[in-house]
Amino acid sequence: MSIPTMEWKNNRLRIIDQTKLPLQLIYIDCCNVKSVWDAIKALKVRGAPAIGIAAAFGVVLGIKEIKSDNFNIFKECLSKIIAYLASSRPTAVNLFWALERMRKKVLANSNLKVPEIKKLLLQEAIGVLEEDKQTCRRLADFGSQLINDNDNCLTICNAGALATADYGTALGVFYRAKEKGRVFKVFACETRPLLQGARLTAWELMKHNIDLTLIADNTAGYLMAEGMLQKVFVGADRIARNGDAANKIGTCNLAILSHYHKIPFYVVAPSSTFDLKLKTGRDIPIEHRHETEVLKLQAKNVAPYGIKVYNPAFDVTGHKFISAFVTEKGIIYPPF
Amino acid sequence: MSIPTMEWKNNRLRIIDQTKLPLQLIYIDCCNVKSVWDAIKALKVRGAPAIGIAAAFGVVLGIKEIKSDNFNIFKECLSKIIAYLASSRPTAVNLFWALERMRKKVLANSNLKVPEIKKLLLQEAIGVLEEDKQTCRRLADFGSQLINDNDNCLTICNAGALATADYGTALGVFYRAKEKGRVFKVFACETRPLLQGARLTAWELMKHNIDLTLIADNTAGYLMAEGMLQKVFVGADRIARNGDAANKIGTCNLAILSHYHKIPFYVVAPSSTFDLKLKTGRDIPIEHRHETEVLKLQAKNVAPYGIKVYNPAFDVTGHKFISAFVTEKGIIYPPF
Repeated sequence: MSIPTMEWKNNRLRIIDQTKLPLQLIYIDCCNVKSVWDAIKALKVRGAPAIGIAAAFGVVLGIKEIKSDNFNIFKECLSKIIAYLASSRPTAVNLFWALERMRKKVLANSNLKVPEIKKLLLQEAIGVLEEDKQTCRRLADFGSQLINDNDNCLTICNAGALATADYGTALGVFYRAKEKGRVFKVFACETRPLLQGARLTAWELMKHNIDLTLIADNTAGYLMAEGMLQKVFVGADRIARNGDAANKIGTCNLAILSHYHKIPFYVVAPSSTFDLKLKTGRDIPIEHRHETEVLKLQAKNVAPYGIKVYNPAFDVTGHKFISAFVTEKGIIYPPF
Repeated sequence: MSIPTMEWKNNRLRIIDQTKLPLQLIYIDCCNVKSVWDAIKALKVRGAPAIGIAAAFGVVLGIKEIKSDNFNIFKECLSKIIAYLASSRPTAVNLFWALERMRKKVLANSNLKVPEIKKLLLQEAIGVLEEDKQTCRRLADFGSQLINDNDNCLTICNAGALATADYGTALGVFYRAKEKGRVFKVFACETRPLLQGARLTAWELMKHNIDLTLIADNTAGYLMAEGMLQKVFVGADRIARNGDAANKIGTCNLAILSHYHKIPFYVVAPSSTFDLKLKTGRDIPIEHRHETEVLKLQAKNVAPYGIKVYNPAFDVTGHKFISAFVTEKGIIYPPF
């Protein structure tokens, strides 16, 4: 990606305000923990890996404000910062994974002085970001093996550069396949209610000159019935031990439709997305978001005043509908 | 419905401009055949039965302008008017059904003078409208037998009063069940790209005090997986001999998801929607509409400039996924 999506620069976390795309490309410099929390909450930064990276830098920005060099006071403040950042969004496990990684770094270095620990935490956050870049490339290498010439592929939401530090997960597969000279097409579900497909995935894929066609989410089943799709690639926000995978609302529909139409359905996600503490997808907390996301579109009302709305942001795809997981360690086929 | 949706008044066809709902309730008086064609094409009037009624009055308005009282000239002009109206939209068979009904009326009365035939055609169009009202009531009577207390029902697009002359098809089932005192809830898919669910179905059901919740189309599978839905009721635009049914894009997704989750899936449609000339759903022509419907929402761009869009307006639901057809003659269970 020629345009960096996340950077640590001048002691600030620079992100793209994804709520403004594709009409405006605006960078935000987060200079304190609250601005990171706000950015995650308001979906200015979104996508499971990107949320994890942002949270790690949120810790770095938060601890800068701890005045005391007393370790116990530092640890107590750190816990509050971590709890605060963890409250931003409930579904993507990468958020909690990154925060726990920061906490463990502190606990493993409790013998050091607080200023030293602060330096280590900055290194750790940079490590989270750099490792994500490597992970994206490995995911893309493995996943691109699944794409053949003349494939038509479907994706939902945005599992791309904007959702990571580099290349993306599901979209990284397309970028790598293109680099390898594969000739294929991508259909992107617009992904209501927040249109991450229309706004973000379309923006990214067009920048990479991927042959892209946008569809209303409702059109996916029609494409499958017409024999116009060969493969589906999606990201994931949290994957349970049995392989059930939470991802953007609508994903489980695509999985069941793919299963019926005998179209391979691939989940592309780093190993940090697997939450082995959870036995099945029933244990994954599903975030419900505000009704205005459905009621309004780009700030214009589309439904009558006073109507009730039900607005879960994610759903869970049963493991039986997943053909394989693409991870940075390789492709995992069933049984999971 | 307290608000009339279609009326013949002062020699004009009065319709609601459905593109303006729910923000504005605006009536349009169509006074010539072109204004009827425009209204159908631009979806100011939409819904299979309503399109049929509008087309019948379109013929009445068209023949008013035929100056000659020579039968052969009249018949030739009539054919042109019918062909013109038939070119407005390709999928809903009720359009062609109503136009053929008008043509047959002329052929059966070729012994009469042209002014007499013109009067008969007005009576025939009024007949199409009045019969639709009766049909709606009968559909609703039969369909409401399928609703039990505490059912949560799902619908897509708008198969309501706005799609007919009176009560609706799928939504008529809800209105009648409510009159009978049934306690139930309805979830409405917002129905991208044109949001007929959010704009029209929500407007209608709220006027009838039906307990309604709006969802993004992507949320349907989640509701089913969570056990929150007991029944699905949809309309249809054309039904082939084997029971394959064309309806709003996204319907076939709901049908396959319902099948997987073992939720009854009912198609509510008058017998004029059945096209026995067509063997299967493969023979139903699917209208593809302009990309701006997906690219823009209420005139605001939501996707990058220059992107390709694929925008079929309907899909076909395989008969094996349909639990029953509700028609004005009764409920038809498989085999169809």
